Amino acid sequence: MTTTTHPETSIDADPAVPAIHITREFSAPVEAVFRAHLDPDLVVKWLGPRSITMRIDRWDATTGGAYRYTHSLGDEDYKFYGSFHEVRPNSRIVQTFTFEGFPDGVSLETLTFEDLGGGRTRLHVVSVFESVEARDMALASGMETGVVEGYERLDDVLAKA
Amino acid sequence: MTTTTHPETSIDADPAVPAIHITREFSAPVEAVFRAHLDPDLVVKWLGPRSITMRIDRWDATTGGAYRYTHSLGDEDYKFYGSFHEVRPNSRIVQTFTFEGFPDGVSLETLTFEDLGGGRTRLHVVSVFESVEARDMALASGMETGVVEGYERLDDVLAKA
Repeated sequence: MTTTTHPETSIDADPAVPAIHITREFSAPVEAVFRAHLDPDLVVKWLGPRSITMRIDRWDATTGGAYRYTHSLGDEDYKFYGSFHEVRPNSRIVQTFTFEGFPDGVSLETLTFEDLGGGRTRLHVVSVFESVEARDMALASGMETGVVEGYERLDDVLAKA
Repeated sequence: MTTTTHPETSIDADPAVPAIHITREFSAPVEAVFRAHLDPDLVVKWLGPRSITMRIDRWDATTGGAYRYTHSLGDEDYKFYGSFHEVRPNSRIVQTFTFEGFPDGVSLETLTFEDLGGGRTRLHVVSVFESVEARDMALASGMETGVVEGYERLDDVLAKA
């Protein structure tokens, strides 16, 4: 049996504003980590927890573009959609996010890709919500499993690239 | 000289989160107020202060669409862009907003259109920022003039429709 060690993912509620901060390092160059967030053929392999299968219904990862996808778990479908407000090559993605099961909930996610040199990258994600209640509901929804497992799957995608 | 009285526009900083709340009533049915936010031929007549002229560079007011426009004041151009995260007919628009002069600043705006009956509509806008500093910078930028004058111009557009 092979044991693989993955970097730790930190997920923290902001003390001052209704936001969640996620920080994660990857053993891959910034261009590769960035591309794995934009290319739908790669995204489908890692976004979300291990238990789901993902289908992309719409994907235009450009400034002013939009996305829509479905996570399936057995007979249950979970649909998500949003817009790409900005795609700044190899440095920044700003996107919106809604789970269709809670259609009034919207968050604004800013992803910053930091080149650490030596083929390593630090990703910082800030998700801002309209209220502390909405933020805490997201934290309580089981998002942590999806984020942590998703980034472990992304490690594998990057190792094979 | 004719004196026209316009409804008051309230613009308030949220005490708990980095948001701005705007509330304004209009003497027009909700369908008309909603359409005046979506139809570029109408938007161009009212969005922003009286001193500017507006040119729309991109406008797709649908869920997953995007916009880009220019406000000109003399020789100066001010460019803005964003995405339409959701367009829910006659009730709700969620959009992002960036002023290109401050490209890292993004706000998430939720517009709610409330039918008051009797041909009157209340519009509530919540703009959420990533930080209190960004919110306060927006408030200090002179946005109040643009919002108040813009809605007075919108009154005129609605009166002529």
